[in-house]
Amino acid sequence: MTQVYNRVALIGLGLIASSMAHAMRAQGLAGEIVGHAKSAETRAVALEIGLCDRVCATAAEAVQGADLVVLAVPVGAMAALAAEIGPHLAPGATVTDVGSVKQAVIAAVAPCLHPGVTFIPGHPMAGTEYSGPRSGFATLFQNRWWLLTPLPDTEPSKINQLRSLLEAMGARVDTMEADHHDLVLAVVSHTPHLIAYTMVGVADHLAQVSNSEVIQYSATGFRDFTRIAASDPTMWRDVFLTNKDAVLDVLGRFTEELFALQRAIRMGDGDLLHAYFTRTRAIRRGIIEAGQDTSAPDFGRVAAAKAAGS
Amino acid sequence: MTQVYNRVALIGLGLIASSMAHAMRAQGLAGEIVGHAKSAETRAVALEIGLCDRVCATAAEAVQGADLVVLAVPVGAMAALAAEIGPHLAPGATVTDVGSVKQAVIAAVAPCLHPGVTFIPGHPMAGTEYSGPRSGFATLFQNRWWLLTPLPDTEPSKINQLRSLLEAMGARVDTMEADHHDLVLAVVSHTPHLIAYTMVGVADHLAQVSNSEVIQYSATGFRDFTRIAASDPTMWRDVFLTNKDAVLDVLGRFTEELFALQRAIRMGDGDLLHAYFTRTRAIRRGIIEAGQDTSAPDFGRVAAAKAAGS
Repeated sequence: MTQVYNRVALIGLGLIASSMAHAMRAQGLAGEIVGHAKSAETRAVALEIGLCDRVCATAAEAVQGADLVVLAVPVGAMAALAAEIGPHLAPGATVTDVGSVKQAVIAAVAPCLHPGVTFIPGHPMAGTEYSGPRSGFATLFQNRWWLLTPLPDTEPSKINQLRSLLEAMGARVDTMEADHHDLVLAVVSHTPHLIAYTMVGVADHLAQVSNSEVIQYSATGFRDFTRIAASDPTMWRDVFLTNKDAVLDVLGRFTEELFALQRAIRMGDGDLLHAYFTRTRAIRRGIIEAGQDTSAPDFGRVAAAKAAGS
Repeated sequence: MTQVYNRVALIGLGLIASSMAHAMRAQGLAGEIVGHAKSAETRAVALEIGLCDRVCATAAEAVQGADLVVLAVPVGAMAALAAEIGPHLAPGATVTDVGSVKQAVIAAVAPCLHPGVTFIPGHPMAGTEYSGPRSGFATLFQNRWWLLTPLPDTEPSKINQLRSLLEAMGARVDTMEADHHDLVLAVVSHTPHLIAYTMVGVADHLAQVSNSEVIQYSATGFRDFTRIAASDPTMWRDVFLTNKDAVLDVLGRFTEELFALQRAIRMGDGDLLHAYFTRTRAIRRGIIEAGQDTSAPDFGRVAAAKAAGS
């Protein structure tokens, strides 16, 4: 694989940036990988595990001379970061981000960049429930989508260069408008996360059922919710605050639909329930056929347990 | 391992019964395994794959001479089944069931059994999103809970005999009152399933976001919901209709909680969201420590994909 950028600056060294570092390193996609994280502890871990070629104490220092700068911090931290690095960006540099919300990031970042810089907002649709510099792995992006929401009049060659990097890391790249991105994500990611958090919270509050019972008997459905309800609290707070309109829209639809099913239960309308539950099966089949999940029973937990030797 | 029952009759040959057949066979726990399913196609598959020693055309025939009868049909089918087999049960036989709801099953089954029969209601808290006679596997119950809700005055030796069988199949056995069981399950299983079905339905209905987008981008959270929303529609319709009160109670609490989070999003209350999302992380840790889920990222999907050679 050939080098795509001379120097890549990763700002924020969590799950996404650390996975990018591993993936770029594995294939020699970057001449040099420079990193910065706000937390001194995170920088120390990055040094200890050799995540980057260099770790800088400030973001301004890290971006100097980089031809690709990746903003990999929570959405709520983008504005301050962009203001800090704006004056230090090299002419001709490309800036991208990995935020889960795109309109708010564009509003926060674009005004801070000088005209010689190309901003290509991005969103890798990959993750696990883990976070931090030790959580990354080189194959995180394999067969996962990485959406770009370029602004009008972006130089196509800059987009193609970024696309080459992302595809070399295993991602499938697509482009769409930022507002459409935010609605799609509200449906497939943001609202499901809020619902999972809520369900876990309900179980936590219920006095008649103890937490130990909830935990012991979770294999019957509940544990699937807890995985996404264990995701990084700061990242998710920011997602909900910055994609508010789309999330509230989808939540409203969700509540309507839930009330319709709740009414069917109350009225004993088994036909409605059966028809509804039959339709939702087809969507699962589509996800497996599209290669976006494993068809192994229980997400392949048995294989995972065997691999772990338990 | 020694034989626990001379003849076990499995009525209904879906995921649970076929897994029991594999597990009992693997360890010689039953002298003979007799099976019956209502559908001729299921009976043909059971014969073809050698699931049971004998497959009978009627449930009445299958239970004759059995010292353990397992009712493994949807909860809504229990009453008719119990009425059919009641007169044919051998004196001294134990009858158990595997329904996800216990009070309704007791009400449906107990009146049909003659005094020489011991009824011990049961619920294996294990499953996958697959169903049918081909979906079973011998390790389904390994390290999973199997709850028994025995009626007052049940002969302890009969309970211990059943417990021996279940533990030999790898299950952890616990007993509780039927009404408490139904509430616990409403929290950890029934309501999460309804919510997952609802979320998948919302995505299916949303006109601005295409189904192909939902499927393509599902790895960001949505796909975790689709697994449980792909479960057997008949089984789940019956669960909601027969555990109505507990499910409606938990759904009411869920909606209240969801509205509180929705309000926090609308009002921009980031502190409330962050604190809420931090608490739910702890529950996930508890589930992993209790051995009820894998700690592998993404449920170990990567390991599953590798095992499948993809």
